[in-house]
Amino acid sequence: MQTKIILEEKDLPKHWYNISPDLPEPMSPPLHPGTKKPIGPDDLAPLFPMSLIAQEVSMEREIEIPEPVRAVYKQWRPSPLFRAYNLEKFLDTPAKIYYKYEGLSPSGSHKPNTSIAQAFYNKEAGIKRISTETGAGQWGSALSYAGAIFGLDIEVYMVKISYHQKPYRKSLMESYGAKCIPSPSETTNAGRAILEKDRNSNGSLGIAISEAVEVAAQNSNTNYALGSVLNHVLLHQTVIGLEAIKQMEIADVYPDIIIGCTGGGSNFAGIVLPFLGKAIKENKNTRFIAVEPSACPSLTKGKFAYDYGDTMHLTPLVKMYTLGADFMPPGFHSGGLRYHGMSPLISHLKNHSYIEAESFFQNDCLKSGITFAKTEGIIPAPEASHAVHGAIAKALECKRDGTAKTILFNLCGHGYFDMKAYEDFLAGTLDDSLFDETSITESLTKLPVL
Amino acid sequence: MQTKIILEEKDLPKHWYNISPDLPEPMSPPLHPGTKKPIGPDDLAPLFPMSLIAQEVSMEREIEIPEPVRAVYKQWRPSPLFRAYNLEKFLDTPAKIYYKYEGLSPSGSHKPNTSIAQAFYNKEAGIKRISTETGAGQWGSALSYAGAIFGLDIEVYMVKISYHQKPYRKSLMESYGAKCIPSPSETTNAGRAILEKDRNSNGSLGIAISEAVEVAAQNSNTNYALGSVLNHVLLHQTVIGLEAIKQMEIADVYPDIIIGCTGGGSNFAGIVLPFLGKAIKENKNTRFIAVEPSACPSLTKGKFAYDYGDTMHLTPLVKMYTLGADFMPPGFHSGGLRYHGMSPLISHLKNHSYIEAESFFQNDCLKSGITFAKTEGIIPAPEASHAVHGAIAKALECKRDGTAKTILFNLCGHGYFDMKAYEDFLAGTLDDSLFDETSITESLTKLPVL
Repeated sequence: MQTKIILEEKDLPKHWYNISPDLPEPMSPPLHPGTKKPIGPDDLAPLFPMSLIAQEVSMEREIEIPEPVRAVYKQWRPSPLFRAYNLEKFLDTPAKIYYKYEGLSPSGSHKPNTSIAQAFYNKEAGIKRISTETGAGQWGSALSYAGAIFGLDIEVYMVKISYHQKPYRKSLMESYGAKCIPSPSETTNAGRAILEKDRNSNGSLGIAISEAVEVAAQNSNTNYALGSVLNHVLLHQTVIGLEAIKQMEIADVYPDIIIGCTGGGSNFAGIVLPFLGKAIKENKNTRFIAVEPSACPSLTKGKFAYDYGDTMHLTPLVKMYTLGADFMPPGFHSGGLRYHGMSPLISHLKNHSYIEAESFFQNDCLKSGITFAKTEGIIPAPEASHAVHGAIAKALECKRDGTAKTILFNLCGHGYFDMKAYEDFLAGTLDDSLFDETSITESLTKLPVL
Repeated sequence: MQTKIILEEKDLPKHWYNISPDLPEPMSPPLHPGTKKPIGPDDLAPLFPMSLIAQEVSMEREIEIPEPVRAVYKQWRPSPLFRAYNLEKFLDTPAKIYYKYEGLSPSGSHKPNTSIAQAFYNKEAGIKRISTETGAGQWGSALSYAGAIFGLDIEVYMVKISYHQKPYRKSLMESYGAKCIPSPSETTNAGRAILEKDRNSNGSLGIAISEAVEVAAQNSNTNYALGSVLNHVLLHQTVIGLEAIKQMEIADVYPDIIIGCTGGGSNFAGIVLPFLGKAIKENKNTRFIAVEPSACPSLTKGKFAYDYGDTMHLTPLVKMYTLGADFMPPGFHSGGLRYHGMSPLISHLKNHSYIEAESFFQNDCLKSGITFAKTEGIIPAPEASHAVHGAIAKALECKRDGTAKTILFNLCGHGYFDMKAYEDFLAGTLDDSLFDETSITESLTKLPVL
């Protein structure tokens, strides 16, 4: 009875997997926020190095992982794949539950898979500083770690509600030598504009993106980095699924259902895209389920439309499932999932029914997180507890129907920095009714007209 | 260039290593606190199951790890051994630095190596509840995790200063279903007696032990568990060193110097004892260095004498390096190292010069912790930062002397729950002069007379 399937360093993927050439339907191009015409590489050059812009639009199936990036990956990769024997036993389900665990990275989540790559390419391009935003702090920590490794200054705009909920995230970023600023802040035009309207703003990923983009756009030695959403970010995360394919082969099973939580879509993409590529090419019948919070349900209640990625409308327009760039998600505990939009690639896959989506309330997810901790030992990040809950729901369906499905989910991070969520859950003080349906309807009326 | 050496589940040790039969000099026996005569198994029976009492005095070299314990170990074991290439490069040292990383366990340290074993044996003996103490919270979390796995109620007395410094530790224990009480508390005679003398007592491990022992002694379905100090606890930790021996063989090097931090001595023993056994049997010339805090320097400034393990003199008298059971360590940040005494086994080894000891101030250790985070990515627990600092000090000696020694240290846990220490360090508010030498002199005058 093998609990975890581990790979050796020599099994670390040498390439990321780019699904673009395998997609039967092409994606809609991003549009310039001013001209509303498709953007070209030059439009993105003030923010990103050319190597990453090239990856953003690449049609190569395999993109080589640079050796210096692989060298850092080896600090925690290949990551283990676990069979959740204890959880299965507790649920008394005939389902086989596997999880890929990304929480063993130095900053505790899947995020370094891309932060290390992005820092490397920026360093190579002569950039001195990177500005970024972070929700729960996973991304900010991961980029701060990457900045320390490659010698770059990192400036992180952290969504204010998370900044206060998770003060240790700031300390971690600062320990890596980075700067962490609560957003909305007084340091940018975008931040000041929001504060003028609402001094007590909780902040949101949309606002923090506006601040970080502004800083990068105004400083030539500074680039911007995004922790999710963009094609190149999702690309870097495919190491997760590529490893998982090998590990499931060793376990001699193939998943019937693959589950991940979605905020911007990157950890979900990481585990799903390589399996989805196989499903398309080998005509496999695998279900891919994105799990999102009921309080910020872009895939399940949003509209598939062109919208801005940020609150201040500084980013290109992208075709995605969106709740409207003006939507202000309530201050629930999964800061990493409080985003009004969704990765264009994941949105495209949902629109063409390659993937499904489900939404759950945070109390149910955190309850499943506790069940997981008591059986498998690991306390999931509140974001990851959505994937746990999705997997438990499917395992209980198997129990009801008497079917022995193989479920694989991505446990994208641990919750050591997020214990306030569990404290509040255990105290019974978490409110699931925070969510206001009319605010979505309203914000969707303001989608840009093309 | 291999960054980490991993073992497969099949390489997980099947036995713990008991050094007792290999010790040329016998240890002094523990004495009954009342009669001052050597204690027998029956004296310990109110607190521990017979299986653990047998391990405490066993002269068998190899003690089998029960299969249910190995099954849980597989959640995180074998743990990786890292070569610290980045740190070596940063220090510009000819030394080779290796570290065994125990922070990937569900509760974040080496402690589950023994909590899982202790919970198993207690469950087997029909016990329903275990009471214990915890300093920084690593042990309390680990026992809470073990309680969840084996279905035992866990009650943790947590040293008050750590309880307030690390509120998330409490949330983690509660997520595992355990109860966490700040010590000194009003719930025990021991706690009330301390509070009567000092309402603002920071607490100490010595006091918390008194509370937990009292609870176990007064309830027949309740046992007591200790996270360090005792022979059986150190025994369970030898999986660390046993794995490390195999991993160093794979790396094709043998350590010249092995370093661990010491509070009660268990993580140090875990990595050192198997190598020390080899050194004794194969006449190897390895240095074993215990690193302790200057603010609680039992091995470097204590006396090798019979003393009580707790403040209220409820425990047996053991021969150990002690600062006196009345010594109240200042409220510095490595709660796991704030213990007046030391494991009798480690003390015995020190007294016979098998091992050396050094002490360092917390600001120096946390500074090294930051250096480690910036180079190797992992933020060490403040306790573990002592081992990091010890290793860095030795690597810099190698640089000075131009010698290419191989240094191995145990990174016993991560610091995700301890970011307040780094926050205070970065803010420059940590005071190393807290330590008062006369308080040791005074407390040592009160050692029990036999």
